[in-house]
Amino acid sequence: MSGVNLPAVSERVQSLHAQMTLDEKLAQLVGYWVDQGDEVVAPMAGEMVTSTGYEEATAHGIGHLTRVYGTRPVDPVERAQWLWDEQRRLRERSRLGIGAIVHEECLTGLAAWKAATLPTPLAWGAAFDPELTEQVAAAIGRSMHELGIHQGLAPVLDVVTDPRWGRVDECIAEDPYVVGTIGTAYVRGLQSAGVHATLKHFAGYSASQAGRNHAPVHMGRRRLQDVVLPPFEMAVRDGGVRSVMNSYAEIDGVPVASDPELLTALLREEWGFDGTVVADYFAVAFLHALHGVAGDLGEAAALALRAGIDIELPTGDAFVAPLRERLAAHPEEMGDVDRAVLRVLSQKEELGLLDDDLSSPPARVDLDTAEMRELARRAAEESLVLLSNDGMLPLEAPRTLALIGPNADAAEALMGCYSFANHVLAHHPGTPLGFEIPTIAEALRTELPQASIVVERGCDVEDPDPSGIPAAVEAAARADVAVVVVGDRAGLFGRGTVGEGNDVDDLELPGAQRALVEAVVATGTPTVVVVVSGRPYAIGFMLDGPSAAGAVIQAFFPGEEGGPAIARVLSGSAAPSGRLPVSLPRSAGAQPYTYLHPVLGGPTEITSADNTPARPFGFGLAYTTFAREDLEASDAATDGTVVASVRVTNTGERSGTDVVQLYARDVSASVTRPVAQLLAYQRVTLAPGESATVTFDVPATRLAFTGRDGRRIVEPGTVELWVGASCADRETETRIELTGPIHALTADSARVATATIAPLVREPR
Amino acid sequence: MSGVNLPAVSERVQSLHAQMTLDEKLAQLVGYWVDQGDEVVAPMAGEMVTSTGYEEATAHGIGHLTRVYGTRPVDPVERAQWLWDEQRRLRERSRLGIGAIVHEECLTGLAAWKAATLPTPLAWGAAFDPELTEQVAAAIGRSMHELGIHQGLAPVLDVVTDPRWGRVDECIAEDPYVVGTIGTAYVRGLQSAGVHATLKHFAGYSASQAGRNHAPVHMGRRRLQDVVLPPFEMAVRDGGVRSVMNSYAEIDGVPVASDPELLTALLREEWGFDGTVVADYFAVAFLHALHGVAGDLGEAAALALRAGIDIELPTGDAFVAPLRERLAAHPEEMGDVDRAVLRVLSQKEELGLLDDDLSSPPARVDLDTAEMRELARRAAEESLVLLSNDGMLPLEAPRTLALIGPNADAAEALMGCYSFANHVLAHHPGTPLGFEIPTIAEALRTELPQASIVVERGCDVEDPDPSGIPAAVEAAARADVAVVVVGDRAGLFGRGTVGEGNDVDDLELPGAQRALVEAVVATGTPTVVVVVSGRPYAIGFMLDGPSAAGAVIQAFFPGEEGGPAIARVLSGSAAPSGRLPVSLPRSAGAQPYTYLHPVLGGPTEITSADNTPARPFGFGLAYTTFAREDLEASDAATDGTVVASVRVTNTGERSGTDVVQLYARDVSASVTRPVAQLLAYQRVTLAPGESATVTFDVPATRLAFTGRDGRRIVEPGTVELWVGASCADRETETRIELTGPIHALTADSARVATATIAPLVREPR
Repeated sequence: MSGVNLPAVSERVQSLHAQMTLDEKLAQLVGYWVDQGDEVVAPMAGEMVTSTGYEEATAHGIGHLTRVYGTRPVDPVERAQWLWDEQRRLRERSRLGIGAIVHEECLTGLAAWKAATLPTPLAWGAAFDPELTEQVAAAIGRSMHELGIHQGLAPVLDVVTDPRWGRVDECIAEDPYVVGTIGTAYVRGLQSAGVHATLKHFAGYSASQAGRNHAPVHMGRRRLQDVVLPPFEMAVRDGGVRSVMNSYAEIDGVPVASDPELLTALLREEWGFDGTVVADYFAVAFLHALHGVAGDLGEAAALALRAGIDIELPTGDAFVAPLRERLAAHPEEMGDVDRAVLRVLSQKEELGLLDDDLSSPPARVDLDTAEMRELARRAAEESLVLLSNDGMLPLEAPRTLALIGPNADAAEALMGCYSFANHVLAHHPGTPLGFEIPTIAEALRTELPQASIVVERGCDVEDPDPSGIPAAVEAAARADVAVVVVGDRAGLFGRGTVGEGNDVDDLELPGAQRALVEAVVATGTPTVVVVVSGRPYAIGFMLDGPSAAGAVIQAFFPGEEGGPAIARVLSGSAAPSGRLPVSLPRSAGAQPYTYLHPVLGGPTEITSADNTPARPFGFGLAYTTFAREDLEASDAATDGTVVASVRVTNTGERSGTDVVQLYARDVSASVTRPVAQLLAYQRVTLAPGESATVTFDVPATRLAFTGRDGRRIVEPGTVELWVGASCADRETETRIELTGPIHALTADSARVATATIAPLVREPR
Repeated sequence: MSGVNLPAVSERVQSLHAQMTLDEKLAQLVGYWVDQGDEVVAPMAGEMVTSTGYEEATAHGIGHLTRVYGTRPVDPVERAQWLWDEQRRLRERSRLGIGAIVHEECLTGLAAWKAATLPTPLAWGAAFDPELTEQVAAAIGRSMHELGIHQGLAPVLDVVTDPRWGRVDECIAEDPYVVGTIGTAYVRGLQSAGVHATLKHFAGYSASQAGRNHAPVHMGRRRLQDVVLPPFEMAVRDGGVRSVMNSYAEIDGVPVASDPELLTALLREEWGFDGTVVADYFAVAFLHALHGVAGDLGEAAALALRAGIDIELPTGDAFVAPLRERLAAHPEEMGDVDRAVLRVLSQKEELGLLDDDLSSPPARVDLDTAEMRELARRAAEESLVLLSNDGMLPLEAPRTLALIGPNADAAEALMGCYSFANHVLAHHPGTPLGFEIPTIAEALRTELPQASIVVERGCDVEDPDPSGIPAAVEAAARADVAVVVVGDRAGLFGRGTVGEGNDVDDLELPGAQRALVEAVVATGTPTVVVVVSGRPYAIGFMLDGPSAAGAVIQAFFPGEEGGPAIARVLSGSAAPSGRLPVSLPRSAGAQPYTYLHPVLGGPTEITSADNTPARPFGFGLAYTTFAREDLEASDAATDGTVVASVRVTNTGERSGTDVVQLYARDVSASVTRPVAQLLAYQRVTLAPGESATVTFDVPATRLAFTGRDGRRIVEPGTVELWVGASCADRETETRIELTGPIHALTADSARVATATIAPLVREPR
């Protein structure tokens, strides 16, 4: 088979494979999109989707069924009955008896009608709470398993690189370690329910030029290895993920879907991944149609298979008829087909899809259980980031409150781009959501029953028409307090202000919203601004200077319990504890920017353009204050562990949660190193006056980087360490020496820091 | 000598080297900055410059004398006398008798008091006229030679990547072939006078993140090889350049000043360069102080020498005392020192600096000869780009003309950042320029003697104060015609709006200038806008839409004859013939952008952010019209030559010059390829009704790119060709096949296309 290394598989899979015709093999390598009609839920879907009918497409079996629940609003119980019937047909009545893998989107909860919608990944990042993310993912996985779904197309492990990109709301953070720890937790949670997770988008998608969707990525191997790949490596090696999806991107001229270096040499041979690689929707065809690295669809199929893509999604545009024709002329490429088929069959064996299905479809389904709502509430609450507060928060029983802004009374404003509501239901006006999602206005009325609340929209999210602003100003002027809720509307490809395809070249709040905020602040009425968005905007104007609001809260699409969570934080029934998982940008023209920059990537005296973020990575206030003191850390060998401890004290009058952040700087190295790098983090909840000592065990590998020779190494030398309120705050600091020879990382190297929290006996201060 | 390959040198150099003490060797590797005082003419100069006195610094000889004429306004004749005396002292009275290399900046003419100031490199690019650039450089070289200057720190071969960068005005174009052809012409011209040219900045400097000066560069090997390096390769292999200066940049974490791959393996071993590599000012020290890849200055010196830097400029911050100390502990590094010394001595031998100097200093010097002024006039005139014209240009004998704008009557507005005026004289207020440079106002009064011209400044270049706009509006309303001259003021490090260190995160015209243009256009008086700038700005608003001016001319700092050139183009005594050497940007937030993008780098339906330039690369109108017809081209072997011919006809009523631009697109390749690539170009002047056939002989290597295996190759396949008014205009097109096997480029591969122009007998149309 022309030098192709076939994967080790069971005898059963071998025997099945040996019986298969070419048509049966090709059928296993593609999906079929049952419901796909005119609805545009993926790029160029209208043009690319095959019109082949279902019967014909599944005549020889089928690899995947694509978004059976998630393409249009179908009743889950009815659809489950259909699905069980179809699987039975495939498994009991087809020649080979192979069931189909059913995959769905599940980034903010299962993307299906009536299913709970949870916070968007930027909110997971803001919560800095992997354990909670794991619980959320486990709950999502259980609801998927109940519906006969085998694979979820999440999590997204793209490191945020440029807030202009529309898909930033699908990403977790700007820091690869935060992405890796939280993303791995999501994988563990989802897979604990028997549902395969899928890492997206391997690799480089978020680093496209000027933040433009699908635009070329320019980076070298070092940045790829040190920033982009680590979250994927963690989710593969530590999380045991079962599937990976390619990135649409080209990196330095090579489309990833055609790159065996990434999809095979690195992912499988170096990291040991043995699951399946699925194509992002239409990515195989794009090799021909958009990237121009294949002369036709058959060549595109051959390139993708050779690179290491096993399954074409959403349908077999290239992997069926064009590939069949290609193989007639290039029989030597059959080995690549067989390799992919064996992998798919192994995945199906693992999922039980080669066995009879003794289960029955669910007679009743609750996709928004009380448990799920409680998780949704915690996840939302932990994610809210208090950016400024002159003392007006929490609100002290206002008698009259003007609730202003386009996102104040809008349920859809609380959900991300990959929520069923914004992804699919937007095409079905009038169809109810099927679950409760109180708006901020509704929640605030419940939370502040004594207050008289007047709601004024002021302006639209997107429409620049400012004609509603005077009425909003009047309402604010008459109230004790104004709460202005601004931000985004998630959607796809030109519908909405953020989400897939909704890239921007300007990071001002969309439409007339900045003018609305400035006008309300100018009334002099104490004003809180709540930004509910899918990307960080250039909102420095409301944090500092003449238009500074009394307080500003950043919420990244917080999901179905986001309204109550925001209301509770405003009232003080809950305390804000989120931290910025991304730098708050200064301007679009200062992008791209990352806090992980070397000296010359930040503001210096040799450039006049200031790119200091409006608020730095890791920043977030509480309703109390914290002191971080007495950071102590041990020297360590380059292949050892740094033990660092710091005392954190709640120095205020209210209970609160700090996210203790340990940062490092490698002072001198063989290549340039960032001025700050998050080494470890830990949420700690403390009563007023209470102290705790947080001790981090940090493997020295956390300071690894790609040396001049291309290997990832830990070099000896001096490392500065600090803990503070953000990456930019050295509240307590020390320095250590890494000692011994240069240490090259191996497969067994530890990648994760651990924390222990020791409460201290309260002492008089 | 520890594995260092010493260069082949003459017996004389060998013998000299054998006699040298360590101190004498180190002295040859550094410059001394005679006049450097408090004036800040380089980044961090105040901090970095050694305070060692001249006597001490030259006690063992000296490698370079740094900017003897170019640091402050000194009389050239007096300074020449001093210099001849000093050289005589070094050559006749020092132990080894080695003279010093005298280097100066010379980008827009010799940067010295009273010397002619020519157009900035972006203007050379706009002229698309390598022959003229060569003549200009030869004239500059002769004036330098007369003053005893041996080396000029030009040309800048950085390919424009991001207009936010302040140093864009020092660059030639966004297209590497235009940079390479014109840059090589400059090298040939300068060196024809016996003055060594210095390629800047090798390599990658212009591709810094977000266009920020010295910020990290992120790119892969393919983009480096296919876009950044070709101009340098052309100037080395075809231009025979004698010196190269390193880039300050780090590329993917490796500062170039410490990178032997670029400075030695590529430049010397692959390209065969045998001249000297000089450090950009302070770049050696920056390895320690800014990049953090060296623990101290001694290590920085060792890294730089090992990488391939031979000479530290401007002074010996690292290469003298710190290196001496370093060598005491690391005697094995002496080989790197010897290698550099041998190269410097060879360069000096080549320059005659080892011989007695029988010349005498010039008794009289004219640095602004009639020949120079004529070259300055031609260069300025050819560089003016007419961006729009509703027919109002050329002006038809206006009786009254309102001349408006901060650049209308300002001589300094006509000169780039590296002009002596803006670089140095700005620190010496009151000192006269020492040569004639008529402002646009002065030139227009001469050019339009019958017109009554009222000058109103309207606003400042930089100050946002709009209070002068009403007076300008009033003047415009009362005039037959308004001419508004806006743009930049070149300077360094916070002084001015463009130039070294003057990066921006916004591409609107600085200050209140957009408001000024909009207000004047709104008067209804026919309005021409002349943009005199060092970078392309987002001026789409004045080209299209409600604030469109009647005509817009783009001038890149056009030098001492720029005022008269603009006046003559306005009046019609001269015709505009420049073309955009850079895309005219849509916005800062759409950056970076290049016309050399693959499909997905341009506007697509899968991103909502439009990055279409306001005007495309290669665009420029004339006072006549041209038809490009009947493009014909031959198929060719991958190692052969494509012969392409096109007929160009002047279809208007006036004589005019077209820049015939042949573009190509490789339809399908093993990596992504740009949607357009300039293959060849040629200026052609035609009388009304006249036609000519332009035939290009294009080596197939012009279509080479870096394949998957890292080699630069030409692949067989279909290539689309077209000629039109810009990269975006397929006025006449054809397609060819490249045939035969994949062809890998060699050292002997042709890199340049040639053109022949055959006038046609005029036929009735």
